[in-house]
Amino acid sequence: MTTDKKIRPIHEYVEGILGGNRILLSRAITMIESKKPEHQSLAQEIIEKCLPHTGHSIRIGITGSPGVGKSTFIEAFGTYLIREQKRKTAVLAIDPTSQKSHGSILGDKTRMDKLSINENAFIRPSPAGESLGGVATKTRETMLLCEAAGFNTILIETVGVGQSEIAVHSMVDFFLLLLLPGAGDELQGIKRGIVEMADLIAINKTDGDQIDLAKSARKDYSMALHLFPEKESGWTPKAVTCSSQEKEGMADIWQLLLDFQQLTLANDWFENNRKQQLKNWFYDLIDLGLKHWFYRDVEIKQELRTIEKKVVAGKISAAKAVSQLLEKLI
Amino acid sequence: MTTDKKIRPIHEYVEGILGGNRILLSRAITMIESKKPEHQSLAQEIIEKCLPHTGHSIRIGITGSPGVGKSTFIEAFGTYLIREQKRKTAVLAIDPTSQKSHGSILGDKTRMDKLSINENAFIRPSPAGESLGGVATKTRETMLLCEAAGFNTILIETVGVGQSEIAVHSMVDFFLLLLLPGAGDELQGIKRGIVEMADLIAINKTDGDQIDLAKSARKDYSMALHLFPEKESGWTPKAVTCSSQEKEGMADIWQLLLDFQQLTLANDWFENNRKQQLKNWFYDLIDLGLKHWFYRDVEIKQELRTIEKKVVAGKISAAKAVSQLLEKLI
Repeated sequence: MTTDKKIRPIHEYVEGILGGNRILLSRAITMIESKKPEHQSLAQEIIEKCLPHTGHSIRIGITGSPGVGKSTFIEAFGTYLIREQKRKTAVLAIDPTSQKSHGSILGDKTRMDKLSINENAFIRPSPAGESLGGVATKTRETMLLCEAAGFNTILIETVGVGQSEIAVHSMVDFFLLLLLPGAGDELQGIKRGIVEMADLIAINKTDGDQIDLAKSARKDYSMALHLFPEKESGWTPKAVTCSSQEKEGMADIWQLLLDFQQLTLANDWFENNRKQQLKNWFYDLIDLGLKHWFYRDVEIKQELRTIEKKVVAGKISAAKAVSQLLEKLI
Repeated sequence: MTTDKKIRPIHEYVEGILGGNRILLSRAITMIESKKPEHQSLAQEIIEKCLPHTGHSIRIGITGSPGVGKSTFIEAFGTYLIREQKRKTAVLAIDPTSQKSHGSILGDKTRMDKLSINENAFIRPSPAGESLGGVATKTRETMLLCEAAGFNTILIETVGVGQSEIAVHSMVDFFLLLLLPGAGDELQGIKRGIVEMADLIAINKTDGDQIDLAKSARKDYSMALHLFPEKESGWTPKAVTCSSQEKEGMADIWQLLLDFQQLTLANDWFENNRKQQLKNWFYDLIDLGLKHWFYRDVEIKQELRTIEKKVVAGKISAAKAVSQLLEKLI
């Protein structure tokens, strides 16, 4: 059994992933998430080899406040995609809060019990113990490997608080915001900027005695969405109702996704947006790389503490301290 | 006349600033804002020499949506501070939007006509043509020189949109949020995070037929402020009404500032917060410095374009491209 766990040659991972081998896919993702330099460089080689086989998917970001039913929605929507649309669906997450609580979203796979055992689904929780920048990079790389493994629908879940939606938005084609019936209360928890990012608002839990409330919320959001400036994609954001419990509304949502894709493929936004995202990611990685390099330098670490004390004590200006540090290094 | 404009020896600037010479203070700030390396290094020397004379002030951040009457408030509050409290007051601004519109806040000094001609006031608009990080650094350095010149009250204005409040919050002791009467409408334009940062909410334009509305808004905000988690400073945020037009409420606001200062000096938060801010600033400057150095390298600039194209074309992974770039440089 232990031989299975050891590191294999790169080509075995690559061939495995391209052949749709989920175990090797998982192991490669573990390399991506690993802090060990040898795992890191192996992961980079695997990604490099898989690169020509990536991109053939629709990438969907899904957000919403805690309690809106994201997991139940993804279970229902993912199952619909696999059964009715024959789509291979990967579910990833960006959740920087998991580093604190260790309660990563998607971490509790039992919340998606049907989806997690489906052979056409692949569920991977948010990597733990990372900054948002780190989590986003790892999720993006994981997405590429999933695409290479033949997953043509990528769902990236995030929590509806903080900066993580911006990270998800920067790596998906389409951004879906889940809300609850009861528009007014809901808007307080969701930042205006997130509503502006949405391509589709789905009022979840449209079932039981909430149907009327949900329908009226849908109308309100439809109106509100028209007040935002037109999107570069040329797409007019929509609002729909759905019930993850009753598995209703899934076909409508999928149809809207197809409409969106058709429109944005035709007007070249789909391709241009991905290129722009790739470019931004490249520059984000440069920033991360520079910091990583700077703070790894052992001499700098020692110097940093001494000089930080001087700065805080007001004995040297922050700017001068930084010039001195950088001069020494460069 | 032209000899006045030429660069003087460092000690002349320093002595001038410490002696309260506003012309030399202005010129030194112009050096801070200059892009020329010789001005930059001169500015750093001046700051360094002034450093022992900084910090003896209360630093107050002031924010609010456009239209809330920030300039009129600062005119009224600044005049009150100078006349009634004999405080020397400097008014600075952080407005990264000014780089686009060239219509910097505070740029139009006529909006503060009484204050701008008062010899105990010093007004300096937001530096233009900079990123938020750059603007924030320059404003912070300007604040230090103002303190060295004897200004013991620093008001830093910002617009109530985007990330600039976080920048202001990171360099002040006390954060004042101006709102208009009519609580519900107002909250939509102001992000929840900004309300959470506030030490004081002042309902401006409490005059004419808006007095009742303002009083009821004050009550609502007082209640809302109690719902937020307790602040590290130990201070309970307050809500008051004021009228910049009628110059009412200024003494109350000043009294609350004194209460705040007394409390936080006693529990050491005042000093500890400044130390923490200085530390954070130091690390922000390291980030800025690393980027600056990286993108200034001419070889890198050429290489960057070539490699960016490869990344966007999917010929090389972003991570591998970045490692190659950094390896070459380091």
